[in-house]
Amino acid sequence: MTGLFITFEGGDGSGKSTQARLLTDWLQEQGHSVLRSREPGGTEVGIEIREIVLHHRGDIAPRAEALLYAADRAHHIATKVRPALARGEIVIQDRYLDSSVAYQGAGRVLGATEVRDLSLWAAEGLLPDLTILLDLDETVARGRLDAANKRFDRLEAEKNEFHARVRAAFLELAEAEQTRFLVTDAAAPVETIAAIVRARVAALLGA
Amino acid sequence: MTGLFITFEGGDGSGKSTQARLLTDWLQEQGHSVLRSREPGGTEVGIEIREIVLHHRGDIAPRAEALLYAADRAHHIATKVRPALARGEIVIQDRYLDSSVAYQGAGRVLGATEVRDLSLWAAEGLLPDLTILLDLDETVARGRLDAANKRFDRLEAEKNEFHARVRAAFLELAEAEQTRFLVTDAAAPVETIAAIVRARVAALLGA
Ligand SMILES: Nc1ncnc2c1ncn2[C@@H]1O[C@H](COP(=O)(O)OP(=O)(O)O)[C@@H](O)[C@H]1O
Ligand SMILES: Nc1ncnc2c1ncn2[C@@H]1O[C@H](COP(=O)(O)OP(=O)(O)O)[C@@H](O)[C@H]1O
Ligand SMILES: [Mg+2]
Ligand SMILES: [Mg+2]
Repeated sequence: MTGLFITFEGGDGSGKSTQARLLTDWLQEQGHSVLRSREPGGTEVGIEIREIVLHHRGDIAPRAEALLYAADRAHHIATKVRPALARGEIVIQDRYLDSSVAYQGAGRVLGATEVRDLSLWAAEGLLPDLTILLDLDETVARGRLDAANKRFDRLEAEKNEFHARVRAAFLELAEAEQTRFLVTDAAAPVETIAAIVRARVAALLGA
Repeated sequence: MTGLFITFEGGDGSGKSTQARLLTDWLQEQGHSVLRSREPGGTEVGIEIREIVLHHRGDIAPRAEALLYAADRAHHIATKVRPALARGEIVIQDRYLDSSVAYQGAGRVLGATEVRDLSLWAAEGLLPDLTILLDLDETVARGRLDAANKRFDRLEAEKNEFHARVRAAFLELAEAEQTRFLVTDAAAPVETIAAIVRARVAALLGA
């Protein structure tokens, strides 16, 4: 058996952590072994990298930032995700290569293709079995984060216009790989989304 | 004017820092503006990256390590080297992409070509005008470092056999790009090497 690799994608505040937690709980109740993970920062090395990317004073060159995310990914996939999949576990991950492509690409400095190639080199070609895109209007997302009174990091503080481009980029990626993606309306109630996600995962597990 | 980009390459203890210092002093005496730099760690971001690579407890996945070095390079080249070259300065750098290729390649996990491609992507294709390879038997290099009573970092602590492969890899790179490289016998006296280096740089400046 080779496990199942599921990723959650979408902007900040779209509900990725919420849905990842609910799906994890449900799968564990059914007796599955689940590894819940995240990028950036899913390993000790990743946490150190995340510190640099998110909290460095001053600008980081665009290619350097892309390479740091790719380094986090390489380490995380090689040391945590692949071993778990090899043990037959289900890996549920908050953000993966689609985030890299959408965020870096939306910044308009680096091309979507080169960012994707870099990610795939880092991950030795690993693609998710299923990617759930939580699609949400960026102003609604912002409202949720304000309500939760979250501290904003460097990325979160960028402008709404940027988040709109990220959203559009995610939708384009989903359009291009319809078999891998499940696009959900993230403005729906938490439990509605969770049920849609469970149905799709159940289908995958049954197959 | 577009400046001049000179790199020093060779194993630890081969005399890179010594020769880079002497060349810098000589050029400055002649009235040139010189930026002396190093990789990894030539910028603040680079110093943080270097901390991760050299002092992380436990193994770093090979691709992650290569990507971290590439991130350091991308930031360093974009924010320090290119601006200095654009101002017409001479950049003298301790280690550059040949070190990445020789060290990562000699580790036999990643291919020389993919490491080189990654570096060139990071640096947006920047190649040195001149690369001085300080070629030295690895046992002699070790003796020098022991004599200087240097603390060994993770790379320095690797086996002699590895350093012999690195040396061979450097020589191969020089063989493949004879116009860019000046190979010097690093067992010669400091002043002899310095004179050879100065002659070559003077020729480049005259041209
Ligand atoms: N479907 C939803 N409807 C309304 N609020 C939600 C929904 N999903 C999550 N939230 C709330 O929005 C905020 C951000 O959710 P979170 O899961 O942390 O998003 P993300 O991980 O994508 O940043 C939290 O306060 C969460 O409780
Ligand atoms: N040509 C040389 N002959 C003998 N010793 C040398 C020579 N060049 C440098 N050294 C000594 O070897 C040690 C390592 O030199 P260094 O310039 O720091 O090498 P690197 O920067 O390549 O590690 C130092 O103690 C230095 O004084
Ligand atoms: Mg979250
Ligand atoms: Mg040195």
